Amino acid sequence: MLARLPTPPIGDELARDISRIVAIWRETRTKHGGIPFAEERIRLRQPESRDAILRHSPSGKVPALKANGLVVFDSLAILEYLAERHPELRLWPRDEEARALARSVSAEMHSGFVTLRNDMSMELLARLPTPPISDELARDISRIVAIWRETRTKHGAGGPFLFGAFSNADAMYAPVATRFRTYGVDLAAFGDDGTAASYAETILALPEMAEWTEGAEAEIRARKAG
Amino acid sequence: MLARLPTPPIGDELARDISRIVAIWRETRTKHGGIPFAEERIRLRQPESRDAILRHSPSGKVPALKANGLVVFDSLAILEYLAERHPELRLWPRDEEARALARSVSAEMHSGFVTLRNDMSMELLARLPTPPISDELARDISRIVAIWRETRTKHGAGGPFLFGAFSNADAMYAPVATRFRTYGVDLAAFGDDGTAASYAETILALPEMAEWTEGAEAEIRARKAG
Repeated sequence: MLARLPTPPIGDELARDISRIVAIWRETRTKHGGIPFAEERIRLRQPESRDAILRHSPSGKVPALKANGLVVFDSLAILEYLAERHPELRLWPRDEEARALARSVSAEMHSGFVTLRNDMSMELLARLPTPPISDELARDISRIVAIWRETRTKHGAGGPFLFGAFSNADAMYAPVATRFRTYGVDLAAFGDDGTAASYAETILALPEMAEWTEGAEAEIRARKAG
Repeated sequence: MLARLPTPPIGDELARDISRIVAIWRETRTKHGGIPFAEERIRLRQPESRDAILRHSPSGKVPALKANGLVVFDSLAILEYLAERHPELRLWPRDEEARALARSVSAEMHSGFVTLRNDMSMELLARLPTPPISDELARDISRIVAIWRETRTKHGAGGPFLFGAFSNADAMYAPVATRFRTYGVDLAAFGDDGTAASYAETILALPEMAEWTEGAEAEIRARKAG
């Protein structure tokens, strides 16, 4: 089966989210054989970026996954595709109620949290001051704290992730953990009883997150040298 | 199986999208038995709206579907849930490439087209002037035209919908057809060779779309009388 697995996704800051997440799956699921892939990064916000992306992704957006002669060009569609192609990885929880909740919170992240995205933009390597906490931003952060608490409490007994074992929901929320770190957000001020902070630590402690950070550092060094 | 089917979703303008779409499934799929459901509408942007929604939907957003003791609280998660619960309806195309494309364009609508949503807000009953066409708005409309043409051309041979038979992708794009009607958008000016206009007509001609419109009219009459 491995010979027919997805290769390669295209990349940039966002694609790295997904590709590193796939790496997490690979590492945490080695007993299942993992999912090999190759990565192509495209620098965003350059004059040539749009054409470069369009050569791979008809939506003009990243990430996109090329696999088996087809292109899947949205993060959530990629996760559904991988879950469907690799039932052995259980990328969605097996329990129906847990699965419905996992899909709901994943879709909520997919289309929502606009204020959080704007006010706490993704700066993986930086450590920045906490931005002014507007009502909308507070609501976004509190909602994430509540999601992490609810999923961990109801469905997290089997492991350290939102639904116990690593799932697509963790792939959707892992980048948020880095935003909270970048902007030094004290989750206790947003209703956290410790569950959310502990989950964020779990995510950030994954070897693949360190690898992601190192990749970003290497890229910045290369740009400065170039 | 029918006895265990989803009831009831909660509603408002957005929830009506979904519930009417479910109605479309019901009508177009009567040979399969359809999916019965009950609808609860909640008026948005009222002082009591948020609390009313939160009684049903933990995200504070609509639509939400309650079924079998669980709550699915996002439109795309609802569509995945229904597809999974009702494989006989084939809410995603059976062909793998078509299904990956259907999920990609559905997810693209789920999180994208922000300019179109802002500049051509959903006004089901109104007929309004075409707004000024910014570059961003033109790009959104052109992209939808391209999606409709690509899906219809590559995968639409089996019927009048994006992937032939009615699918979840139509559920995601049906509301856009009403926006184009409301604002009198000439799709030919955005690269349409007639395929997109014809598809929009197909959607708008569905009896369930007329029913949706009539429901909105009845609600407005009730508000004026109230």
